[in-house]
Amino acid sequence: MDIASYLDRKREEVDRFLDTAVPSAQTAPATLHESMRYSLFAGGKRIRPILAMASAEAVGQPSKAILPIASSLELIHTYSLIHDDLPAMDNDDYRRGKLTNHKVYGEAMAILAGDALLTLAFDLCSRADLLDHLDPIRQVQIIHELALGAGNLGMVGGQVLDIQAENKDIDLATLQTIHAHKTGMLIRAAVRMGAIVSSATPAQLKQLTAYAEDVGLAFQIADDVLNVTGTREELGKNANTDAQRGKKTYPSFCGVEGARTLADQCANRAISRLDTFDAKADSLRELARYITSRRN
Amino acid sequence: MDIASYLDRKREEVDRFLDTAVPSAQTAPATLHESMRYSLFAGGKRIRPILAMASAEAVGQPSKAILPIASSLELIHTYSLIHDDLPAMDNDDYRRGKLTNHKVYGEAMAILAGDALLTLAFDLCSRADLLDHLDPIRQVQIIHELALGAGNLGMVGGQVLDIQAENKDIDLATLQTIHAHKTGMLIRAAVRMGAIVSSATPAQLKQLTAYAEDVGLAFQIADDVLNVTGTREELGKNANTDAQRGKKTYPSFCGVEGARTLADQCANRAISRLDTFDAKADSLRELARYITSRRN
Repeated sequence: MDIASYLDRKREEVDRFLDTAVPSAQTAPATLHESMRYSLFAGGKRIRPILAMASAEAVGQPSKAILPIASSLELIHTYSLIHDDLPAMDNDDYRRGKLTNHKVYGEAMAILAGDALLTLAFDLCSRADLLDHLDPIRQVQIIHELALGAGNLGMVGGQVLDIQAENKDIDLATLQTIHAHKTGMLIRAAVRMGAIVSSATPAQLKQLTAYAEDVGLAFQIADDVLNVTGTREELGKNANTDAQRGKKTYPSFCGVEGARTLADQCANRAISRLDTFDAKADSLRELARYITSRRN
Repeated sequence: MDIASYLDRKREEVDRFLDTAVPSAQTAPATLHESMRYSLFAGGKRIRPILAMASAEAVGQPSKAILPIASSLELIHTYSLIHDDLPAMDNDDYRRGKLTNHKVYGEAMAILAGDALLTLAFDLCSRADLLDHLDPIRQVQIIHELALGAGNLGMVGGQVLDIQAENKDIDLATLQTIHAHKTGMLIRAAVRMGAIVSSATPAQLKQLTAYAEDVGLAFQIADDVLNVTGTREELGKNANTDAQRGKKTYPSFCGVEGARTLADQCANRAISRLDTFDAKADSLRELARYITSRRN
């Protein structure tokens, strides 16, 4: 399979759906919707939605419900970026080559746009009109996965650990715990949500969860490597910011080459988790490889 | 019925439940949970959960699911207060007589505690273990009501309108639109969520929605009056802040007495919406009266 064209196709599907799901910048309150859309359509790769869609495909023919469910993950991801960039947090001026949300719309609007995107994710997952033929028991499970992955014991918890670790001499195990929450839990939720849409068996869900945990780790290690090796142009934001902020990263523990090797090992382990899956899981396999080889 | 003891009893039920629903300040990430609990247990009146519970009672014997569903509304309300108090928003130092969240835990933690409380609300509503015997179709509807009430076309949208109206010469209709979103939509969601837990008929849901809209308006007018007439001790925060911020309020349009009369009219209209309900709706009736007569 050609992973590049698969990614393009799926990203366009997600983008088209998100364009209909978020009110236009003409809908009141106009500035709120403009601000939400500004960050949502700033060139995200839609990795989390695509992981959800590929996971649903690995199990079987996904229902139409997969698109809103998968897209809700991008709303969560986008809100987390907006809030992370705030002056009180990472204080970043650029993201994906564009000014950050609060630099354009001000801090108050950026906080509220994040809150609204987070809430809209649960709106999408609980809409009856978009999700016909999805068993409501599974729909509730999916919503719960999203809340768990995004919340105090998931992504937000990881963000707290990350902030608290700045300028501290943490060990590799602590770094792993931070990443397992900050990045890993939402990726895990993405893969599980997709699997649940396609009525995965408990055994399938278990294997896909293991895949997701390995891919999440590979993703974060690759991100750390990019932060060191990428240029400002490739990253769309300032490079080498982790070191400047005194953040420990995988390269700071095992060097850039060591970290690359580790990311590849994680990707290979992720792929091995799919041994009992047939060719329908090829997108997931290719995604694991793509995630460790990406340049931005 | 004795509304004061009803309110006490229900508030204690909600508080006991919330205490089990939010991880202890010993659970990692400890500071996050401490910060969430700090604002959640700062003496809130639990009006929104109690409206949901009273609405469920008006329709019939509520199932055990009502407590987590109702409590989720307080998580949303608390998150909105934490974010509203931030320096970039209202920049308040005190809330309910205590330092605001960011004054104690810093801005970054306050933003994240708000995010986590918002997410936890959807976690609670989607938990299978707490919500047995609740029809999953109704459960999804309830989650959707919560998202609609809290999101870009509900509470967050109202907050945006409110910020944009500061120091502007708005008319009464605009003020009403702001309040209908900022306060009204979550109160509407509370009453509807309770009704759906108890399997309200479409006719009952319609009447209860009309009740909720009137009560929401009465609540906000009463709040505006209190901001003018209340003392710092009664309010637990600085008094008369609306005028200082150049915010238009009901008293600024029709005076304190005029606003009081308007609030009473809204409460009476709310009560009249319940004409076809029997004595099981007495708590809702008393709540409408309480809301316009409260002193804090």
